[in-house]
Parts: sequence; structure tokens; C-alpha cells
Amino acid sequence: MMKQLSYLHEGTLPRLRRLCRGLLGKLCCAIALVTVVMGVSAAAKPNIVVILADDLGYGDLGCYGHPTIRTPNLDRMAAQGMRFTDFYSAAEVCTPSRAALQTGRYAVRSGMAHDQFRVLRTRSIGHLPASEVTLAERLKEAGYQTGMVGKWHLGVWSIDPAGHPLKHGFDSFFGLPHSNDMDPSPKAPKGAPGRGDQDPEWWNSPLYRNESIVARPADQTQLTRLYTGEAQKFIRENKRKPFFLYFAHTFPHVPLFASDSFRGKSRRGLYGDVVEELDWSVGQILGTLKQEGLDGNTLVVFSSDNGPWLVMDQQGGSAGLLREGKGSTWDGGMRVPGIAWWPGKIKAGVVNTNLASLLDIFPTAIKLAGAKLPEDRAIDGVDLGDVLFKGASSPSRTLFFYKGTRIFAARKDHWKIHLFTQKGYGQPKPDTHEPPLLFDLDADPGESFNVAGSHPEVVAGLLREVEKHRATVVPVVSQLESVQAVDPGK
Amino acid sequence: MMKQLSYLHEGTLPRLRRLCRGLLGKLCCAIALVTVVMGVSAAAKPNIVVILADDLGYGDLGCYGHPTIRTPNLDRMAAQGMRFTDFYSAAEVCTPSRAALQTGRYAVRSGMAHDQFRVLRTRSIGHLPASEVTLAERLKEAGYQTGMVGKWHLGVWSIDPAGHPLKHGFDSFFGLPHSNDMDPSPKAPKGAPGRGDQDPEWWNSPLYRNESIVARPADQTQLTRLYTGEAQKFIRENKRKPFFLYFAHTFPHVPLFASDSFRGKSRRGLYGDVVEELDWSVGQILGTLKQEGLDGNTLVVFSSDNGPWLVMDQQGGSAGLLREGKGSTWDGGMRVPGIAWWPGKIKAGVVNTNLASLLDIFPTAIKLAGAKLPEDRAIDGVDLGDVLFKGASSPSRTLFFYKGTRIFAARKDHWKIHLFTQKGYGQPKPDTHEPPLLFDLDADPGESFNVAGSHPEVVAGLLREVEKHRATVVPVVSQLESVQAVDPGK
Repeated sequence: MMKQLSYLHEGTLPRLRRLCRGLLGKLCCAIALVTVVMGVSAAAKPNIVVILADDLGYGDLGCYGHPTIRTPNLDRMAAQGMRFTDFYSAAEVCTPSRAALQTGRYAVRSGMAHDQFRVLRTRSIGHLPASEVTLAERLKEAGYQTGMVGKWHLGVWSIDPAGHPLKHGFDSFFGLPHSNDMDPSPKAPKGAPGRGDQDPEWWNSPLYRNESIVARPADQTQLTRLYTGEAQKFIRENKRKPFFLYFAHTFPHVPLFASDSFRGKSRRGLYGDVVEELDWSVGQILGTLKQEGLDGNTLVVFSSDNGPWLVMDQQGGSAGLLREGKGSTWDGGMRVPGIAWWPGKIKAGVVNTNLASLLDIFPTAIKLAGAKLPEDRAIDGVDLGDVLFKGASSPSRTLFFYKGTRIFAARKDHWKIHLFTQKGYGQPKPDTHEPPLLFDLDADPGESFNVAGSHPEVVAGLLREVEKHRATVVPVVSQLESVQAVDPGK
Repeated sequence: MMKQLSYLHEGTLPRLRRLCRGLLGKLCCAIALVTVVMGVSAAAKPNIVVILADDLGYGDLGCYGHPTIRTPNLDRMAAQGMRFTDFYSAAEVCTPSRAALQTGRYAVRSGMAHDQFRVLRTRSIGHLPASEVTLAERLKEAGYQTGMVGKWHLGVWSIDPAGHPLKHGFDSFFGLPHSNDMDPSPKAPKGAPGRGDQDPEWWNSPLYRNESIVARPADQTQLTRLYTGEAQKFIRENKRKPFFLYFAHTFPHVPLFASDSFRGKSRRGLYGDVVEELDWSVGQILGTLKQEGLDGNTLVVFSSDNGPWLVMDQQGGSAGLLREGKGSTWDGGMRVPGIAWWPGKIKAGVVNTNLASLLDIFPTAIKLAGAKLPEDRAIDGVDLGDVLFKGASSPSRTLFFYKGTRIFAARKDHWKIHLFTQKGYGQPKPDTHEPPLLFDLDADPGESFNVAGSHPEVVAGLLREVEKHRATVVPVVSQLESVQAVDPGK
């Protein structure tokens, strides 16, 4: 082989022709052809990296106007890529939003929503059903190496192993099964999550590598740093195949912890320290992609699973000029930062005002991978490829704002109706609106001026969209209801 | 002379020497020397342009996070210059803020504040006193050509000619004497200013060139366009001397008007149209400076006279994540956009978190002009030169938040105390706070969490600053109280 290759290196065209006539020559030509084809194929399948923050608000980044949280890496990502003004999470709290991201479907379809129990708990028996097709599964089938780092929250595998990310399409996992406030140790005082004087010992979260616990309690002060290192390792180890990395940060969900390099460093207090470490992490990931020469072939999307947890006071974030936060279907609960980056493919410095959603990552990524969408089920996301790469307007679509299994609100273009409204926390029952409230989110992003009276046709049109959508939703058993009597982890 | 000059043009060194030996030659050398010296001197005195918006809120620009108002020119100005996160107007409403900008002093010192009559009215007899030293006067003395375009609101010269900008240091003036809602015509319905269906004929504002009315009513739909043209003309005509241009826009103060090129174009509605035309205007000014080769020798500062007029509903702007708006000493009433631009001298793309104020323009500009501050009076602003040009921290200082003649609040570093709080509009009497409220504006820019209890020493320190400042304020007669019985303009 070495000899043949040396012929190629120094070869002239006649010599190559003569060589190819012989058997060895034919073999050599075939190998060269296969290499070229494989190379093209790999180049055509871009890497996909999704970085998800937890409870980060619309107003919490420098590039979204925060005055005291410094996020130079995310600001640069936005300046080199596309920053969305109207990017929505797929639900008002964690579990349904993440289920929707993985499936491209509202969580009500997979049973990952519930009207009383809004997220999976440590004793939950249910998990993302095996019948759901996840983004990781689809991309794995399409030849991707699939890795997850961070918070899962779609199954408690100590109760049912079928809830583990490795059972849902991921080749590797490093992180926590659920939110960082869900395993209080007996040392934790009541109401600890929102306190500024958090002690890592108040929490008992298990840190897993694949199916094994590597630390319990996880040292939460080191989580962002550890996650980042694992994500960088994943990128370096898989740089020769297409890969999908789902990097779901534990923070800035309370309890807040930052490493020594960031603690006490931001002007915004502990919340700012944590977001600034997260910003550092994003810089590390983009830097690694550049160092490995992958930045020209990798789509990176940054967003948040829902709005800021306002009742945590200074330990919670800010929705900027938007109304309300986490847990609410007012825009502050679901409109979140959304930044897409792919140098050379996404035009730099674009502020994109199209409607977009975490739901859209599923169809967008599957299209990029050259794979097919599941055809036996409803997919709620839309392919954003033309919006990202061709400057197109997003397809006209209606976004639905679920709280649990009920549609509280719906948005089409710049119009949003509210059938029900409720604060994220502290308002026991929703207000019912008949007729619905109507807001023009372009003119009134703070949802202050109900204009239903002067636009009855818009209200009627949106109500029809709600009915049309409802007709597509098949009732399923909620995965969030049943719990084991005793937490096996305790 | 022509002959001598032709000698110089074709001259050789020996010939020049011979020439200089004679009387004519000496004269010629002297002229050349004077020219060189004047040239150096002119280069050392940079042009100064202050662009002031009216009632523009902290959250109303793209670069401050607004989702639907597009401000590409101001965003670029920020990207090429310095964007301040903690820039304050000098009062919560128009007249005192503009008086402070012109004098570098809180308006209480010049009598341009009043507890009941918060701004000058069309029948006001008073005006900025002749005894005040204005920025225009000081710069004019220092050899500057001084021009003003836009809204004055520091004197009604139809009542007292001494209130005219030309009596306060400006060489030229083109604009309105006061706010655009202060001359309602009989055609205006009650409560017109905040309506979206404004008719230009509802208003009777006079447009002046120097001391002559050129149009009444001014066609408000054309104001931004006309102002911009005048400002560009001023720049072009004075490009060979140092100049000071004070460009005080009439908008986005209500009633809102935009020209046909902008009306109906923004997603934010009429308010957005108006701000986007203002953004266009800024682009024109910076473009003209570049075309004329003046961008390397001109400081441009953009800001607003106070926060957004929230009670105007959709005709009012947004303070972003800040609390309250115009008329209030909560931060939303006084923290405003602040952008400084001077290519080559101000480092590009800096987000500056230092405390800064409209008050600071006076000492900063005077220093740049090589002039001296008045020594016989208190100056409240500080020279920001080192902050702008050397990346220094701003000197430690306390900012006072006046409402009328009373100190409602004070800020030092990131701490702000409130002695009184009041909504901008709709709250008849202020709430008195004894002990004062204390907010950490870094950690809590929305002023939600009173932390006075845990920082008594900070409260005590700020109270001492308030007392120290109060001792420097000499009571003067308010210029805002007396009015003529009949409006002479009617």
C-alpha cells in the first residue's frame, strides 16, 4: 500500500493510467474513491451542538440588554451569528420543555406534562416514553455520535432504567438526572434554594457518568467547570464523525453555585457569577470547535428551557421588559434568549425577529443531518433552515403556550391571545378570559394593553387555530403523576 | 500677496531664504507660522456634538435590548464607540434636565426646578438666568462655532427675549421653544398627546430660525427630517473651525409624528416609527462627519433627557428592566441610553459600567476645548475624559435624584437610597421613607429588594452625602413659577 501511495504522490498522469489498468491500481482507485465519497458525506452532515441554560431569563445577557451581567462570549456568539428576539421555550417549566426539545412535539403529546405535578420528581416512576422518537435517536440512526452533558430531567433511572438518556439515543451521558434543588440533604434548611448563603452540603444530587454515579453529592460549585470539560472532550474525541452534543447546564437554576474563579466576581451577585461562568463555558465550547477546525461545519444553538424564576428574588433572573417569568405563559415565562452560530453559513450579526421555538431544533437538525422526520405522528416544530441560512422569513405558524396539559395562550405572527393567565408562582388559580385577551407583541412586548375589542377577527382566527391544534392532540397517560412510595436514592 | 504665494509654490530653499531676508518675506513667514499654529490649535480642539432624545427610555434601543424597535445606526455607534449601562439624565423631566446639561449643575441651583410646575410652560416668564454659564457660552469663548437644532425648553422668548438660545451662547438656532404638546390648537381633542391617530393640525408649535418664526404650526411630521438637514448643514459650514452642535430632538415626546418614509414601518407601531427615524437621523449625522473627514476629531454623545412617559401607554417608551419612568426618581425615570463615539479616540465596542450623567457633558467638553470651568460656583458634573479615552474608572461620586427642588434619592457606586418615592404620574403625593430605602443597583437593577436593614452604614454614608450636598445649594427664586396672564402666542 505504501508503495502505491508513493506512486500517487510522485505520479504523473500516464503513470497513474498505467497503474490503474492493473489489479492493484484498480484497488487503489477504489480506495481513493471511497475516501472522497466518505469525506463529502461527512462534510454534508454538520455537527449539531445545543447548549441549554436552565431558568435563564430573556433579559439576563449583555446582548439582551442586562446592565450588570457581563456575557462577552455569548455577545460575541450573537455578533458572529444570529440573535433571535422572539425565540420561545416549549413550555413554562423544565420537564415539558425538555421533552418538547427532544421530540419536536408539545409535551402534552408524550405525557410529559401534568396540571398539578409540573415536572418529574425524584420519586417519579414515569419518564419519556420509549415510543417517542428523540432527536438523539434520529441523529444516531443518521450516523451521528450522540453525547449528552448536564441535566436530563426526563426520567429517574434509579426507579426505571428506561428513563436514562442512553435509552433515548445518547451514546454517552455525564450529568444529573434532574434539577439541582430536588435532592435536599437533611442539612438543608427549609426554603434553602433561593438563599444566597448556599452550602453545597445541603444537596445530595448524584452525578453520573453513563449509568454509574461518580459523585454524590455532586460538588455543585464544580458542575459548570466539569460539564464544560466533558463537552470539550466529547467534541475532541468525535471530531472525525458528525456529532450531536446536547449540553444542558444545571444553572442558573437555584441553588446557585459558581466555582472560585467566578464566585463573587460579577456585579449582579451570585446569580450574575453563575451566568458569567456559563458564558465562560460557551466561550470554551466555541473555542474548542475553532481549535479543532470544526467551526465551519457545526451549528451551535444557545437557549434556555424557560423564563427566570422570579419568586427566587435576587437568586432569580430577569425577563427584561417582558411580563412575568418561569411557570407562567405570559411572555416572560417562555420567551428566552436564542442564539444560533455557524460561521460562514449563518450571516454574522443578524438580529432575527422571526418566531422561533425550542420545538424547531428537532426538525431543523434532522433536515441538516439528511434524516427523515417521523411520519406516524404530529411534529410541532418547523424547520428553521431557510431562516438560519437563507435570511428567509419563518413559515407562518401558531405557537401554543401550554401550562400542563392546557393551552393557556397562542401566538401567530405578532398576535397573542390568552385564554387563561396565571403568575408563575403564588397565584393558586388561573384567571379565565372569555373572550380571550389579545396583545400585539410587536407594539406591546410587555403585554400591557388588551386590544381584543378592536380586533375580533384576530381573536376568532387564533381561537380557530387553537381548536385545530387541539383536534390533533391524542390524550395520553401523564408520566408525571405516579411516584414510588419511597425515594430509592435516599 | 498673490505674487509672494506664487514664489512659495514654485520656490526653492535658497530663493525662500533670500525672500525671507526682506520685509515682505518676513511678513510671509509670519503668516505661514500663524497658519501652522492655528491649524495645530484647531486640531487640538475637537468638535463636540450632543444628540439628545426626548423621553426615550432605557429599554428602547436595539443595543439596550428592545425586541422590535430597530436602531441599526445607534447600535453601530455603540459598536464603534462606548455604550454606558449606568448613564443618568440630570432630572426626571425635561426643563431641569436640559438646564443641568447646559450648566453642569443641578437645576435647583439655577432656579430651573419647581415642586409643582415641573417644566416651563408657554406662558412662563422665567428662563435660564443670564447669570448661568452655559456650555455654549464657554465653548464660544474658547473659539467654537456653536449651533443648536431642536427643542430648547429653557425660556419662552416671545415673553422674554432673554430666554432665547442666542442669548445663551449659541451662534445659531433652528427649532422649537418647548415641547411639542405645549401648543394645542383648538382643533386638538382633550387628551390628544397620547393618541395614535394624531393630526398635525391639532398643534400650533412655532418653528424658529434664530429669532424668526419660519412655520406655525410646524409640520411635526417633517421635524426630524428638517432638524437633521439643518444639523448636517451646520457641520458642513463649520468644518474648518471647532464647533459645538447641540441637537435636541423633539421626539419621541408625544404627540408622535414620523415622516412618510418611517410612518407605519416599524414593528413597534408609531412609537417605533419615530424612534427609527431618530436612529436614521443619528446615522446621517455620523455619516456627514465621516464624509467631511471630521470623525477623527469629533466627540459625539447620544442620550435622553429623562425616562419613558409610561402613562402614554403605547405612545410611551420602555425602561426595560428598570422601575418606573419619566417623572419618577426610580431608575426608570432617570437612567437612560448613553452612547459616546469618537473613532480612534474612544475604544470601539466597550460596554462601560461606570456611573455617568448628562451633568458630566459640561466639564468634559470644557476640558476638551481647553477652556476653564467657572470657578465662582458649584459644578455638579465630573470630567469623564479619562473614562472615555483612557479606560479609567469614573471618579467616586454621588448622584442626586431631584424631583423639583427636593432630593428624592441619591446613588453612590452601586447603592441608591430613596428618601421619597413617587410614580412619575398618577400618584398625588410621594411616599416618605424614614429610614430610607436602600437598593443594590448592581444586584437588583429593578429596585425590588430593599436591603437597608442589612447595610445601615451604607445608608448613613449616603445620608451624609445628601447633607453635604444640600449645604452647597443656595436657595434661588424658581424660574418656573411666574406666568403671564395671557399667552402672547395665541
